Amino acid sequence: MDDIDLKILEMLRKNARESLANIGKSVELSAPAIGKRVKQLEEKGIILGYSLKLNHEKLGIRTKAYIILKIHQSSTLKTAYNQIAHLTEVQRCDRITGDDCLCILAFFKDNKELITFLERISQYGVPNTSILLES
Amino acid sequence: MDDIDLKILEMLRKNARESLANIGKSVELSAPAIGKRVKQLEEKGIILGYSLKLNHEKLGIRTKAYIILKIHQSSTLKTAYNQIAHLTEVQRCDRITGDDCLCILAFFKDNKELITFLERISQYGVPNTSILLES
Amino acid sequence: MDDIDLKILEMLRKNARESLANIGKSVELSAPAIGKRVKQLEEKGIILGYSLKLNHEKLGIRTKAYIILKIHQSSTLKTAYNQIAHLTEVQRCDRITGDDCLCILAFFKDNKELITFLERISQYGVPNTSILLES
Amino acid sequence: MDDIDLKILEMLRKNARESLANIGKSVELSAPAIGKRVKQLEEKGIILGYSLKLNHEKLGIRTKAYIILKIHQSSTLKTAYNQIAHLTEVQRCDRITGDDCLCILAFFKDNKELITFLERISQYGVPNTSILLES
Amino acid sequence: MDDIDLKILEMLRKNARESLANIGKSVELSAPAIGKRVKQLEEKGIILGYSLKLNHEKLGIRTKAYIILKIHQSSTLKTAYNQIAHLTEVQRCDRITGDDCLCILAFFKDNKELITFLERISQYGVPNTSILLES
Amino acid sequence: MDDIDLKILEMLRKNARESLANIGKSVELSAPAIGKRVKQLEEKGIILGYSLKLNHEKLGIRTKAYIILKIHQSSTLKTAYNQIAHLTEVQRCDRITGDDCLCILAFFKDNKELITFLERISQYGVPNTSILLES
Amino acid sequence: MDDIDLKILEMLRKNARESLANIGKSVELSAPAIGKRVKQLEEKGIILGYSLKLNHEKLGIRTKAYIILKIHQSSTLKTAYNQIAHLTEVQRCDRITGDDCLCILAFFKDNKELITFLERISQYGVPNTSILLES
Amino acid sequence: MDDIDLKILEMLRKNARESLANIGKSVELSAPAIGKRVKQLEEKGIILGYSLKLNHEKLGIRTKAYIILKIHQSSTLKTAYNQIAHLTEVQRCDRITGDDCLCILAFFKDNKELITFLERISQYGVPNTSILLES
Repeated sequence: MDDIDLKILEMLRKNARESLANIGKSVELSAPAIGKRVKQLEEKGIILGYSLKLNHEKLGIRTKAYIILKIHQSSTLKTAYNQIAHLTEVQRCDRITGDDCLCILAFFKDNKELITFLERISQYGVPNTSILLES
Repeated sequence: MDDIDLKILEMLRKNARESLANIGKSVELSAPAIGKRVKQLEEKGIILGYSLKLNHEKLGIRTKAYIILKIHQSSTLKTAYNQIAHLTEVQRCDRITGDDCLCILAFFKDNKELITFLERISQYGVPNTSILLES
Repeated sequence: MDDIDLKILEMLRKNARESLANIGKSVELSAPAIGKRVKQLEEKGIILGYSLKLNHEKLGIRTKAYIILKIHQSSTLKTAYNQIAHLTEVQRCDRITGDDCLCILAFFKDNKELITFLERISQYGVPNTSILLES
Repeated sequence: MDDIDLKILEMLRKNARESLANIGKSVELSAPAIGKRVKQLEEKGIILGYSLKLNHEKLGIRTKAYIILKIHQSSTLKTAYNQIAHLTEVQRCDRITGDDCLCILAFFKDNKELITFLERISQYGVPNTSILLES
Repeated sequence: MDDIDLKILEMLRKNARESLANIGKSVELSAPAIGKRVKQLEEKGIILGYSLKLNHEKLGIRTKAYIILKIHQSSTLKTAYNQIAHLTEVQRCDRITGDDCLCILAFFKDNKELITFLERISQYGVPNTSILLES
Repeated sequence: MDDIDLKILEMLRKNARESLANIGKSVELSAPAIGKRVKQLEEKGIILGYSLKLNHEKLGIRTKAYIILKIHQSSTLKTAYNQIAHLTEVQRCDRITGDDCLCILAFFKDNKELITFLERISQYGVPNTSILLES
Repeated sequence: MDDIDLKILEMLRKNARESLANIGKSVELSAPAIGKRVKQLEEKGIILGYSLKLNHEKLGIRTKAYIILKIHQSSTLKTAYNQIAHLTEVQRCDRITGDDCLCILAFFKDNKELITFLERISQYGVPNTSILLES
Repeated sequence: MDDIDLKILEMLRKNARESLANIGKSVELSAPAIGKRVKQLEEKGIILGYSLKLNHEKLGIRTKAYIILKIHQSSTLKTAYNQIAHLTEVQRCDRITGDDCLCILAFFKDNKELITFLERISQYGVPNTSILLES
């Protein structure tokens, strides 16, 4: 990874749909040369993918919450993680230090959806919920 | 927003660099028609931008942490938020319920960088740190 | 709902037995006109009922307590809620964020009644009790 | 206070606008006799007033919260209580055992109003907020 | 109970072996008159008994501890109380607010005795121990 | 200290006003011999005094509380201890492990007296109060 | 133990491989005399052994952690202690006051090893982990 | 570092005063060869020193404690660390995650010495103390 790669990553981080031509201009390389480098960054596993930044409120999200799930038995944490990380409401799911737990960031249409979610995950552990007031 | 818009969002969420042509194929519309809809989603503020999913470990990140910053005085929380949310190490910064605090997700090269960060933000409040063990 | 409705609600909030005539005077409408509006507020479900403000001490209440009931299993919280919310000692019963729990406000003749209550609800969860010192 | 008084209180608790005639019927007394007893219950300070049960959601309330305000200095708790208890958003305000604090139940139009409220009361102490998910 | 009774209680509180004659002198009554009053205070259940203030260190006590025993099931708290309150190491045993628990003050020859005690009472709940550093 | 001393202590612990004659009978010694031994136990500082066991409820005590006073500055804990330990409401006052604090057991006529007490001691630290429900 | 013994301990504490001759010089005794004293200190059980101070980072240790293991049942704490204290990752293992628990200091190659360790010990209790940031 | 170095470290870990000759025998090398390797391990900074394992009880230690010192201001944590880590009572001093704090392991002659220590370090932060019951 050289300085040009870092510059490419920086531009894509700001706008993942930036055209190769535009990136090329700012580092004085051709679009195909940039395309080759981007491909390499993907192949090396540095770039894992391209995602959207959405205004979730406009899509009907009214309740965002961090949920700390204190696992009943540490030995079942991996199972819990695999079940929970891929639920559609879940934005992030991380095992963190402190009490042995998962820290889940999830978005919901309303409090009812949050309650349903809490009931679903409570088979793995004891949830503690904090609502996001401002982001 | 109709079903086609939802389908477009879903495809871009999976790959924000998906070509308009490919999206068009799956909803049986032309690339320019898709382009127009994407533009509208941007103009309505539903799509806020396009970002990268990076393998931070490969970029030298060895310490990831959630930091709960319990603010000294609630009245200074907004200032703290504005100062902290845009620091380069910070991935997310949210005001959450429970103790009046900011919940900060930040990535660091090593523990030293984390310590420097803690010292910088401790002017606004009392930090509590949890290390991400697995994501 | 217009300004007159808001005025009616404000007057009834202060004194739910206020006569329709008195309310009418202050908004320059007839008693029957007020009666019609009150009926509509009831029918729309805005006014749910009329209640008493009592001096509970004079009725023999010596111990008032907030009880946080941390539910054993989130999936049983709804059952617990339904059983507890309608007990005669219970003034309020709300599911709140933080640890998954019910927040119960209840009034008791004395500490013995409180202890009996704690024992009864402990089948649903682990209680934490705070006594009201001043209201 | 005799059994008839208790019966009157019970009926008014269910519906504070119940007519004296109806109450009279159920205890086999005349409306004026009931009126006299109600007046005595008011004069003895047992009945403190008559209030409304409102559907706050229909009046635009989207965020209900319990806020525990841990007072900076116990000696200022009384001042804090007097300032906070009469704010329009406040439904209940009680000094409780545990950490020396006020337990405040308050209703807000949205999270922004809640944040403004937190900032206003944070001059007296450190707030801890729990959102009501279900009542 | 009159002022003379209060004076008697005050003198006995300072020295429970004070002679009736001495108490009598200070309230200008005869010893038999005092004896009669003391007997009445006992019969009314105001005086429950007479106890020693001991220097426990000189009797070999090296570890004094407050133990908060968080009961597994509130319904078993009474049983736990009855079993624990009369153990020889126990000085006080009270059910207190907060988490549903017993607050036990107990004295031990050494840390080993404390550990044995913790193991014995842990069948009723989860102990939390604080050592007395200074009294 | 021999077995006879231990027997004397045991009898006085049960009834501090036990007559020397009665104690003597049970250990087969004369009253004067017992008196001499008791005097020695006092002189060695093993017996610190004789106190009353009172029914505090019958003396008007309605609120008993444990108060954990978390000291503002450890260096002022000794001052706080000296001021607080001798207040008339205070039954016990101990410095304990955990957070640097005093654990105070105190008895009050009612909640108002407790509140006044909390305000008085809050100059030294932050109080946390638990009410005794059963002893 | 005299002053010379204390001096010997002090020198060995700084460098456990210090030669007897060097120690002897500083206390004006012969090497054999020092040897005899060291032997006595070992026989009395004052010196339990001689250990290395290692740079664990240079041996591949990247994660050091304190783990508080809150035991499921106090009666099983001794078993847990015996199993855990001798695991190779464990540097210290102590039963401490507060919640009935073991306080474990352990060193790991990486976070994965820590997670494996947490899962292994979670059969005895609930772990709470703190990472060492600086020593 | 090869297997022989690892074997040398293992033997020295068990007994830091092990003779080079004995180590040599077990790896089939001469004492001077071992001496050279040990020197290299010291020069590479892998071996930092040689220390004693002492029976502290026999040296008069009666109170061992873990003290979590929650620092007043994170920016002063480094100063606190430097002042505290080298005090004679201190065995370990580590900055750990969770609340921004130092975790101090220290040994004391008695509770009085512990109290003096708490008062000395309380200028840097708020101490929380746990006594070691068993090691």
